[in-house]
Amino acid sequence: MKMIYTLFLFALLSSACCHAFVNDFCVANLKGPDGPSGYECKPPNTVTVDDFVFSGFVAGNTSGIFNAAVTPAFVTELPGVNGLGLSAARLDIAKGGFVPVHSHAASSEILIMVKGEITAGFITPSAAYQKTLKPGDVMVFPQGLLHFQVNSGKGKATAFLAFSNPSPGAQLLDLLLFGNNLPSELISQTTLLDYAQVKKLKARFGGRG
Amino acid sequence: MKMIYTLFLFALLSSACCHAFVNDFCVANLKGPDGPSGYECKPPNTVTVDDFVFSGFVAGNTSGIFNAAVTPAFVTELPGVNGLGLSAARLDIAKGGFVPVHSHAASSEILIMVKGEITAGFITPSAAYQKTLKPGDVMVFPQGLLHFQVNSGKGKATAFLAFSNPSPGAQLLDLLLFGNNLPSELISQTTLLDYAQVKKLKARFGGRG
Amino acid sequence: MKMIYTLFLFALLSSACCHAFVNDFCVANLKGPDGPSGYECKPPNTVTVDDFVFSGFVAGNTSGIFNAAVTPAFVTELPGVNGLGLSAARLDIAKGGFVPVHSHAASSEILIMVKGEITAGFITPSAAYQKTLKPGDVMVFPQGLLHFQVNSGKGKATAFLAFSNPSPGAQLLDLLLFGNNLPSELISQTTLLDYAQVKKLKARFGGRG
Amino acid sequence: MKMIYTLFLFALLSSACCHAFVNDFCVANLKGPDGPSGYECKPPNTVTVDDFVFSGFVAGNTSGIFNAAVTPAFVTELPGVNGLGLSAARLDIAKGGFVPVHSHAASSEILIMVKGEITAGFITPSAAYQKTLKPGDVMVFPQGLLHFQVNSGKGKATAFLAFSNPSPGAQLLDLLLFGNNLPSELISQTTLLDYAQVKKLKARFGGRG
Amino acid sequence: MKMIYTLFLFALLSSACCHAFVNDFCVANLKGPDGPSGYECKPPNTVTVDDFVFSGFVAGNTSGIFNAAVTPAFVTELPGVNGLGLSAARLDIAKGGFVPVHSHAASSEILIMVKGEITAGFITPSAAYQKTLKPGDVMVFPQGLLHFQVNSGKGKATAFLAFSNPSPGAQLLDLLLFGNNLPSELISQTTLLDYAQVKKLKARFGGRG
Amino acid sequence: MKMIYTLFLFALLSSACCHAFVNDFCVANLKGPDGPSGYECKPPNTVTVDDFVFSGFVAGNTSGIFNAAVTPAFVTELPGVNGLGLSAARLDIAKGGFVPVHSHAASSEILIMVKGEITAGFITPSAAYQKTLKPGDVMVFPQGLLHFQVNSGKGKATAFLAFSNPSPGAQLLDLLLFGNNLPSELISQTTLLDYAQVKKLKARFGGRG
Repeated sequence: MKMIYTLFLFALLSSACCHAFVNDFCVANLKGPDGPSGYECKPPNTVTVDDFVFSGFVAGNTSGIFNAAVTPAFVTELPGVNGLGLSAARLDIAKGGFVPVHSHAASSEILIMVKGEITAGFITPSAAYQKTLKPGDVMVFPQGLLHFQVNSGKGKATAFLAFSNPSPGAQLLDLLLFGNNLPSELISQTTLLDYAQVKKLKARFGGRG
Repeated sequence: MKMIYTLFLFALLSSACCHAFVNDFCVANLKGPDGPSGYECKPPNTVTVDDFVFSGFVAGNTSGIFNAAVTPAFVTELPGVNGLGLSAARLDIAKGGFVPVHSHAASSEILIMVKGEITAGFITPSAAYQKTLKPGDVMVFPQGLLHFQVNSGKGKATAFLAFSNPSPGAQLLDLLLFGNNLPSELISQTTLLDYAQVKKLKARFGGRG
Repeated sequence: MKMIYTLFLFALLSSACCHAFVNDFCVANLKGPDGPSGYECKPPNTVTVDDFVFSGFVAGNTSGIFNAAVTPAFVTELPGVNGLGLSAARLDIAKGGFVPVHSHAASSEILIMVKGEITAGFITPSAAYQKTLKPGDVMVFPQGLLHFQVNSGKGKATAFLAFSNPSPGAQLLDLLLFGNNLPSELISQTTLLDYAQVKKLKARFGGRG
Repeated sequence: MKMIYTLFLFALLSSACCHAFVNDFCVANLKGPDGPSGYECKPPNTVTVDDFVFSGFVAGNTSGIFNAAVTPAFVTELPGVNGLGLSAARLDIAKGGFVPVHSHAASSEILIMVKGEITAGFITPSAAYQKTLKPGDVMVFPQGLLHFQVNSGKGKATAFLAFSNPSPGAQLLDLLLFGNNLPSELISQTTLLDYAQVKKLKARFGGRG
Repeated sequence: MKMIYTLFLFALLSSACCHAFVNDFCVANLKGPDGPSGYECKPPNTVTVDDFVFSGFVAGNTSGIFNAAVTPAFVTELPGVNGLGLSAARLDIAKGGFVPVHSHAASSEILIMVKGEITAGFITPSAAYQKTLKPGDVMVFPQGLLHFQVNSGKGKATAFLAFSNPSPGAQLLDLLLFGNNLPSELISQTTLLDYAQVKKLKARFGGRG
Repeated sequence: MKMIYTLFLFALLSSACCHAFVNDFCVANLKGPDGPSGYECKPPNTVTVDDFVFSGFVAGNTSGIFNAAVTPAFVTELPGVNGLGLSAARLDIAKGGFVPVHSHAASSEILIMVKGEITAGFITPSAAYQKTLKPGDVMVFPQGLLHFQVNSGKGKATAFLAFSNPSPGAQLLDLLLFGNNLPSELISQTTLLDYAQVKKLKARFGGRG
């Protein structure tokens, strides 16, 4: 009896049902190429719940020079976000640590404070917007603007981040300016930083020239 | 003489003309993968007028359990709609039949009454919007909202549907709730439906668990 | 008892419920200004089901010079489509009538044949795509392309149209070229039409100059 | 001297600087009307950092019937997200509590587990995707799909949510089906739920008819 | 020492850094298929600065029948614009020359005058907007509208064009109407042009039928 | 006779014609508020051709500290670009001058070289893309990335710029970092620049703190 109803249902929905897969979600086929709107979709019958779950939001290793760690759940870790305009990350900052000034070329960001204290801000040509955040606070950083996060508390700080892009990238200002091979004279000229300052930071961030 | 003009024209338009194919339309290559914005484009020189025409809007078979039939002209039937944010369907409902409560995850819908009488409505958390429609009436169902269509007349009813998505899918509520293998206890808990009700409809819609 | 549950519900949903109005739909406030994405939203508590229903798809008056009539259900007739990327129209063409060559600047179109016979087509720089359509046929006209519909049958023809824009406009080629006050010399030059032809059609379509 | 440089800068940037306000962000003027793309922008000189910060992510009151609470940081609480395609919420579920089956008409959702255990899932016509989540897990629920979250652990559960819409709304299935005034017969017919079941839940969720 | 910092940096950015390539740009792989949102992205490590530079904006050959030349920098010449919603072209018009009436199906256009004098305009159903432009003038032509450019000066004219589409196409009205194989009777009927006029221009623009 | 045809035409187009204004263009009402998608539309009957033309692309004043000048044709100068995703600017750089490192938060940019020589580049975390441009060269700078333009020639340099945003803003790095009132210690920490360097440039760019 059940089978009969199922068949009737199929008759009703025969044409509509199979389209449901196409646009209800589009899990990234990470082996294929990507395009301006994201990755190709995996065949729906190969999709499992694990395409929609990422289990790696543990405390990151904060022993690096900034004493900060970002653990992403972007499309490469969480292929189910492909095409959905959304992703997440976990941010850990040890005491004294910080995330240096950076931006995301095509993504806004929301920071949700969980533990400790972070002084965060973003900068526009006409004003800087800065706030000391504690657990329970949420702050938004609009798309494409330079921003920073500093652990201003007495212990570890943890926050979660959400992005309006499944693959938000990260443009760390120091790495941009001092990690490349552009001539130091050119960088000095176009940033108005002293030449010696540029050379000093190039040495630190791996840039040549 | 004509040839000369044609050549001159080609000289003028040599670079512009060949781009015309790229974005003027993008007929779906249904054999290729799809992505968040649709299917890859067929090579323009393989496109014919039949990629833009579908000839199947005949009366659907309404002998199923709901006595209703939806005949789609989505991207898989009408590949010319790929990337255009538009598709269509024909809806036939026999006397006493109906399309149960359902939604389209990423598409709005317009219903154009042609024959008979349909009582249609959609539901939001704050209000339900319902109307009895006759030929000459048009009704819109906003994106992602649950809606239904009931033949409330004395004979067959026919309508045409248009969607703001080339592949709108169809989320039939009963199939969602009772056609899967989620535990009946879980469904009962999260829908607040009685356990017996869940079991009864699971038997009808093919769900296990 | 019901009230208590309702209050509890309200406690759960207190903050979420009131946002539901904002984006679930945005019925056009036609008295307000419009912007690039449409009209302002009417206050949700003033919205009724009639904002989502238009009851005017009756046979249009086909006694004009083209013996054709277009009856729209655009945002001004059906304010519920505001922001939804969708609208509709009814097309009636008397025997011998036609809709002259025209385009929609920012909308694709789907035509659903209901009665009679229409020969329809659209034109690209590299090819024209033309088909004689009968009831049961559906044809799509991609955005921004010139297209036409001719009653090629022996009686009246009726079709329904859907658009991917709540306010698709209509650019009738003759009205564009011959209904304005641009100098006839300029029109003749930039269209390569004979000057006499331009003057003749200007007289017919109300243009001066 | 500084003033001179500032003036020179102004000379360079005179025209560009003042546009920076317009599109770098668009904080919602919540007193004005909203439209399909969001609220009007507040005048930039009235914007403060508090437009980008919300300080209310404390534990919600879970004493309601579902023993769950959603605390939103949507555009009405956090006006800086206007136009950015992003918002957030805090979810608290007491032991035994749950968020019933619901959807967001035009928003995807990411859930970040912080504390306790939640069994969450979403449903499509062809499959249900369900997982038991613990701290460190992240799960995405694609746009427009029915989903649920159940506290399956032995104590309180807390999670943060991010949405791809500044105003995601919330379509609670029970409230949709049983909180309105649609006739119970109609609901029973179009959901295939028993009439008695409909009446029982209408009594609970405040619906009439 | 530098290496150590670099490694620490890598530790910080290990997961974020590699995503930076994905969405910061998507240079077209012109050998692959294109889709509704553009071409697939070239692997980032094969991208060079020359993908972002086109060096062909020299004076075009204006010896054709219109004495005008358009030199494009569209996605096929400048693959770095893929997915960015932007492209450019150079326009040269000899004395007495012009660009005939045409449109771009899915692109707006900005014209920047550099040399000489051009009388340009676009046409809507309610009005024509026309202006004589000299160096220093900028004019915008909204998406999908018919427009023209005539050298109204005493020497050569040069302008640069920018488009809101990486592949804007070009719909030259004469080529559309008279370069295809649609029956001349049909063209005459749907344009209201005299049959003789149609035949005359078909001969000129290569159309048959 | 003409009047009769006009009336007939009106009969045909009565409903369609008046919508044509709505979406064919949306000239900015600069006195009204703006929103996420741009400004409100001016009433169509108040629109003139001058809303689509800007006549100020003359050589800018390059006597400022950077010996460079940007003359914009953004939505505030050219209200016809509202909602069209396109704008333009003229760039003049005197010998020895340059446009310092900057970005546009939500806009890509195309540079068209007209005169002189400019060395331009943009920077990503993994590579810098730099080129010396001469007349005839076109270069694209993807959205949200830091870029610069230096006059590397022996005389004046002139270029035209096009943007994928009617109001692209301009984020000059020095003004961001050194023109605000953030504490110098904080800037030094989050940029890794020496404190003395920060103080020196704050003095130059008007920042306090």
